[in-house]
Amino acid sequence: MDYKKLFPYFTANPNEVYFDSAATVLKPKSVLDAEYNYNVKIAANTHNNLFDNAYLANEMVSTTRKLTAKLIGATRADEIIFTSGTTHSLNQIAFGLKKIFQPGDEIVLTKLEHSSNLLPWMVLAKELNLKLNYFDLEADGSIDLKNIKNFINAKTKLVAFANITNTMGALNLVEKITTTIKTINPQTLVVVDAAQAIIHTKTDVSAWNIDCLAFSAHKMFGPFGLGVMWAKKAVLEIMEPIFYGGGNNSAIEFDKFNLAKIPEKFEAGTLNLSAICGFQAALAFIDEINLQTLIEHGHSLKAYLRQAVKKLDQSKFEFYNLKTDEPIFLFNVKGVNAQDFGAFLNKNYHISVRVGKHCARLGKYVFKAESTIRVSFGIFNTTEDIDKLIEAMQNSDNWLDAIL
Amino acid sequence: MDYKKLFPYFTANPNEVYFDSAATVLKPKSVLDAEYNYNVKIAANTHNNLFDNAYLANEMVSTTRKLTAKLIGATRADEIIFTSGTTHSLNQIAFGLKKIFQPGDEIVLTKLEHSSNLLPWMVLAKELNLKLNYFDLEADGSIDLKNIKNFINAKTKLVAFANITNTMGALNLVEKITTTIKTINPQTLVVVDAAQAIIHTKTDVSAWNIDCLAFSAHKMFGPFGLGVMWAKKAVLEIMEPIFYGGGNNSAIEFDKFNLAKIPEKFEAGTLNLSAICGFQAALAFIDEINLQTLIEHGHSLKAYLRQAVKKLDQSKFEFYNLKTDEPIFLFNVKGVNAQDFGAFLNKNYHISVRVGKHCARLGKYVFKAESTIRVSFGIFNTTEDIDKLIEAMQNSDNWLDAIL
Repeated sequence: MDYKKLFPYFTANPNEVYFDSAATVLKPKSVLDAEYNYNVKIAANTHNNLFDNAYLANEMVSTTRKLTAKLIGATRADEIIFTSGTTHSLNQIAFGLKKIFQPGDEIVLTKLEHSSNLLPWMVLAKELNLKLNYFDLEADGSIDLKNIKNFINAKTKLVAFANITNTMGALNLVEKITTTIKTINPQTLVVVDAAQAIIHTKTDVSAWNIDCLAFSAHKMFGPFGLGVMWAKKAVLEIMEPIFYGGGNNSAIEFDKFNLAKIPEKFEAGTLNLSAICGFQAALAFIDEINLQTLIEHGHSLKAYLRQAVKKLDQSKFEFYNLKTDEPIFLFNVKGVNAQDFGAFLNKNYHISVRVGKHCARLGKYVFKAESTIRVSFGIFNTTEDIDKLIEAMQNSDNWLDAIL
Repeated sequence: MDYKKLFPYFTANPNEVYFDSAATVLKPKSVLDAEYNYNVKIAANTHNNLFDNAYLANEMVSTTRKLTAKLIGATRADEIIFTSGTTHSLNQIAFGLKKIFQPGDEIVLTKLEHSSNLLPWMVLAKELNLKLNYFDLEADGSIDLKNIKNFINAKTKLVAFANITNTMGALNLVEKITTTIKTINPQTLVVVDAAQAIIHTKTDVSAWNIDCLAFSAHKMFGPFGLGVMWAKKAVLEIMEPIFYGGGNNSAIEFDKFNLAKIPEKFEAGTLNLSAICGFQAALAFIDEINLQTLIEHGHSLKAYLRQAVKKLDQSKFEFYNLKTDEPIFLFNVKGVNAQDFGAFLNKNYHISVRVGKHCARLGKYVFKAESTIRVSFGIFNTTEDIDKLIEAMQNSDNWLDAIL
């Protein structure tokens, strides 16, 4: 099937090979139309059911909440909190849980975490005098299951890691990791950053027995400006909001106020309603294409690439993650600045990639490169796209063309 | 001019009288198209300039920042911080300024503040042991200029108030108020909530000499999910972010990190890029219609309404804010539950109003009503819309029709 047809982007940019899905995924027409039509047909703000369109607005949010719960295997729709994105979600989790920590408590992360799953914990650790540890990793960047036990003890209050990392594309086996952690310390909270994983593997918070999950709509065919924080009801009850304002309270007097129940407790202010409507269409799009198809498409492109790079002069390149199955390819051209080679791909081949540290600045201690070229695939990418990349890499000696 | 034509909402809802602009303003076609087209033509994430569309994405954000600075009279574009909305902006201001406060310091607000300009200060006051005061108000709900001096002293670290309140529509004269405050205590920071005011009065942060400003795109013809926090550079330098993550840092090591410069310091995570593009179109729309026309249209509808209500049997109604010029009308039908009368307006007249506490829960101590009916006007409203409301109010005895 020609998936490109579903994405208006390729009508406007017919010659482009878009390889930046790890930064943001293109949006199908159905999602853009749903977002647009919210503002045309409904348009109303929520927090009030009085007129017909305000009622429809509340119904739309409520339905999207239920569908989101279904996608991630949550049992309760009121555990789905709409945020502005993964970063908001992870900061809400970190700073909302301040009161569970005592000085000397420990948090375990990995060196491949995105800044949004690293900095909030670093700030919290400094403020509360906590100890940060980093799990040992396998060669592919995934958490080394054998050594988890060395990092979990009675003081381990929380563990946070990505389901799929945004550089090496390492898949962490959440259920196994969580079971190992909770066998040692059942009180340890497990937080999963699913931003990169949500359309590339099956998410099941119930089977996994984790405590919190964060992801963004714009990395799963949905609109910008919308994210989800999920947490177990018991965790949401002890978590404090980081935003206060309209809708997250049920009473205010001069000397006290009452917080609203979940989910509204965490949703102060006007929600991104048109984005929630677009997100509902994104969930339908995922259902229609089928999550398994999305997963397999990514894996098959990575497998194709793994074979294709064999055609290249191996002495000219550094490959950092050929082993992982996830649709991310991290490399460098030896002796060529990554930025320059990225410019060459753009200028000479209309190939759009991301270059740099990919917001995972401790990753350099894992894959041993300060800056890399990241190619990431979406459902709209084809083996022809990869052929074009390989052709460009074969002509890598001509990179100077792009910058002169 | 028939402004309704510019709003696709009225094509989909031709018979509706939309009187809920204080909750959210309808979006013109040009804004919806700009938001849609961002995802079709550019689509890229920022934080990287490497490929053509990523470059265009950064340019688009940068241009919108400059245009936003121009709208509010700010001298520096890097003082414009994009947030998810006014609530985010005000929480960022409150919790980002924690370290300027000492126990016993004072904050002054008004009883007509929106929850988003009330709760963050209440939470901060409780945490840091600060004293909250509330300015005296004139009969129309605006801050009583004569008595400001009684509330400002050497301990007054901050004052926060709405430029136009969201219930009574009282206009606070920001420049005069700020001058009075800073004459007594030049160190007092002045924070203005401009959510309701931004398209109903001229904003000029430089002339006003205030320190922080907050407002939302969706209340000024722009998309949902986007807000602005402005603060003087010197204030932004001492303010700490409430979000940490991708893009707000320039280096991360295990034991330390460097924050990015402003504005990125406060913009962790992927921005709501399609909304920023739509917001740029909203700024153009405001320019095209002309801010003065928007202001005068609002005032003239309020003046028309003030005359029109004279036709009504005055014994049947409570009017709470007929004196203010701003396009908000707050009333009740005596002996009728506000919710029930709102339902009557919706069912029998297709008039959409908001009913309740309007997220300003201390307002009951000012206008002496627990729940009210709020009618708020936009550029698309006409005197015919008001005539229809008056007709409905004349038939107020029939409210039972709507709920039976």
